[in-house]
Amino acid sequence: MTKESVLLVGSGGVGTMAAFALEYSGKAAVTSVLRSDYAKVTDKGFTIDSCDYGHVEGFKTTHIVNSVEKAKQFGPFGYIVVTTKNIPDVTDITEVIAPVVTSDSTIVLIQNGIGIERMLFKKFPKNIVLSGVSLIQSINRNGYVEHTTQDILKLGYFYNSALSKDLQESSCRKFIDLYSNEKVDCEYDEDVKFSRWRKLVYNACLNPICALTGVDVGRLELFGGIDNIIRASMREIIKIAKSDGVTLPEDVIEFMIRCDDPIYFKPSMLVDVEKQNFMEIEVICGNPLRIAKENGVEVPNLSLTYALLRVVQSKLKEEKGLITVPKERPAPK
Amino acid sequence: MTKESVLLVGSGGVGTMAAFALEYSGKAAVTSVLRSDYAKVTDKGFTIDSCDYGHVEGFKTTHIVNSVEKAKQFGPFGYIVVTTKNIPDVTDITEVIAPVVTSDSTIVLIQNGIGIERMLFKKFPKNIVLSGVSLIQSINRNGYVEHTTQDILKLGYFYNSALSKDLQESSCRKFIDLYSNEKVDCEYDEDVKFSRWRKLVYNACLNPICALTGVDVGRLELFGGIDNIIRASMREIIKIAKSDGVTLPEDVIEFMIRCDDPIYFKPSMLVDVEKQNFMEIEVICGNPLRIAKENGVEVPNLSLTYALLRVVQSKLKEEKGLITVPKERPAPK
Repeated sequence: MTKESVLLVGSGGVGTMAAFALEYSGKAAVTSVLRSDYAKVTDKGFTIDSCDYGHVEGFKTTHIVNSVEKAKQFGPFGYIVVTTKNIPDVTDITEVIAPVVTSDSTIVLIQNGIGIERMLFKKFPKNIVLSGVSLIQSINRNGYVEHTTQDILKLGYFYNSALSKDLQESSCRKFIDLYSNEKVDCEYDEDVKFSRWRKLVYNACLNPICALTGVDVGRLELFGGIDNIIRASMREIIKIAKSDGVTLPEDVIEFMIRCDDPIYFKPSMLVDVEKQNFMEIEVICGNPLRIAKENGVEVPNLSLTYALLRVVQSKLKEEKGLITVPKERPAPK
Repeated sequence: MTKESVLLVGSGGVGTMAAFALEYSGKAAVTSVLRSDYAKVTDKGFTIDSCDYGHVEGFKTTHIVNSVEKAKQFGPFGYIVVTTKNIPDVTDITEVIAPVVTSDSTIVLIQNGIGIERMLFKKFPKNIVLSGVSLIQSINRNGYVEHTTQDILKLGYFYNSALSKDLQESSCRKFIDLYSNEKVDCEYDEDVKFSRWRKLVYNACLNPICALTGVDVGRLELFGGIDNIIRASMREIIKIAKSDGVTLPEDVIEFMIRCDDPIYFKPSMLVDVEKQNFMEIEVICGNPLRIAKENGVEVPNLSLTYALLRVVQSKLKEEKGLITVPKERPAPK
């Protein structure tokens, strides 16, 4: 049996474990595009400590390249799996993968956020785009991957009206087959849109507020931020989801607030701020607000939160040299 | 002529220049309570570089003490001038000055914020409390004072219905006489409540948002925060002021937004955050919200801003050891 050619873009904690699962099944040959870890991993592979697979030394995908251009020689790829951090205000992922997308490629977005398919469909209107909602906890620190909770991956497709539903579903089920093994919990999700909005109840509220205040979720609660901010923000997300056709149950609020107990958990956006990394503000905060606006939903908490985060992100862009400000504060035109 | 005995609590940039003006007039003998600068100033006095008075070496008030208790020996004081940072969630200034307040003391609050007289009147219901709105720019760094804009001080009284208006006004005018000289612009303000609310348009909006985002006012504008946040917040302050009987003109918004041009100015609350100092969140943000609530005014931007700042302030309290959190994140009762 020929192995399915899979391209993986984004070898963080989530991406590397996805690559591991795909190679583990024996049904896929993964080409991974590495940047900062390229030299190290080409030499020695990843070291992985996994709650599912134990200690692994020297994990390498079938091919390793340091650019998408160089990946082309190992294509064409039936699946292009994108597990990068999702920051369209910094990197346009459609530009990144464009050189390897063919008419037969299925693009698999295992990424956070809402409305993330829009730019993909705009650029690749005839391709299948799968929607992966990952619940794994896994961190890659310079080639050492610490994987601490089971790899649970819900997969469905972002509906592309140019293609038949059967075709989209069968491509999704085929990918699930490539990914599955006895360790992972990878399943077809009839209503992955629901799962994506549900996850956003946590991500669009606890992530930004912890990032802005500099505290973990536990301290946020002790310092009044859950009662004074989070519940109202979460109700706003539920309102937007409803306007987008997704009815989330009210008790999702308490579930998300309590799901880190009894850990003083730092959401990823807080970790980003602490490490001076860019935050996923557009896909987690900006896109839901755009949907709210389209549907006439008022969300004052989320609007202010997003406006604050945009300033913080811009500050970071200035610090990293992506933008510059005039020497004197400019007067208005 | 006997000099008027004045106690000064709070020798930062504003307080030290107030002490200087009071001693300069020759009409007041100032006892100042110093903490961190006590040893240095007792020894060598303050060094001052002033836009009004030039270079001054060795400035000392008539008496210098390191506690209010020790100040008692130089009392009773006709005026007790409070120029401390106004952080009632950390220090109760009424407790601090209680030992020296007599029935004849006039308390002079040269401090930021709204509703700051409430706790004074609660503790000292029969005393005169003056309201000073200072527009000076002056910083004290370990006994070196850099005074960069003219000492403009608007003075009135917080109306105490237990006393006659004449009595309150004459005490205020007497203090202005003690303070005045050809360099300072210290005048009686018939409507100091207006001046206090007006200043709050800047302080309750630009201060907190710059503190939360970590950028100066100029960058805040370049990064969209003036358009997306500040104007709406300022309109909310104008609404609360109106509910409190103060009509601010609409054009105060543009005045405050532009008043730092062409400097990339860092508001004091941002400087506080950067230096890990407590912020004046209760008197600048909390009290206006309490008035809004009493009067049924909805202010979503300011409410979220205050809730965020409370979390940041609590984090700082934890870091400074004022509060502790349980070892494990507690579950709800």
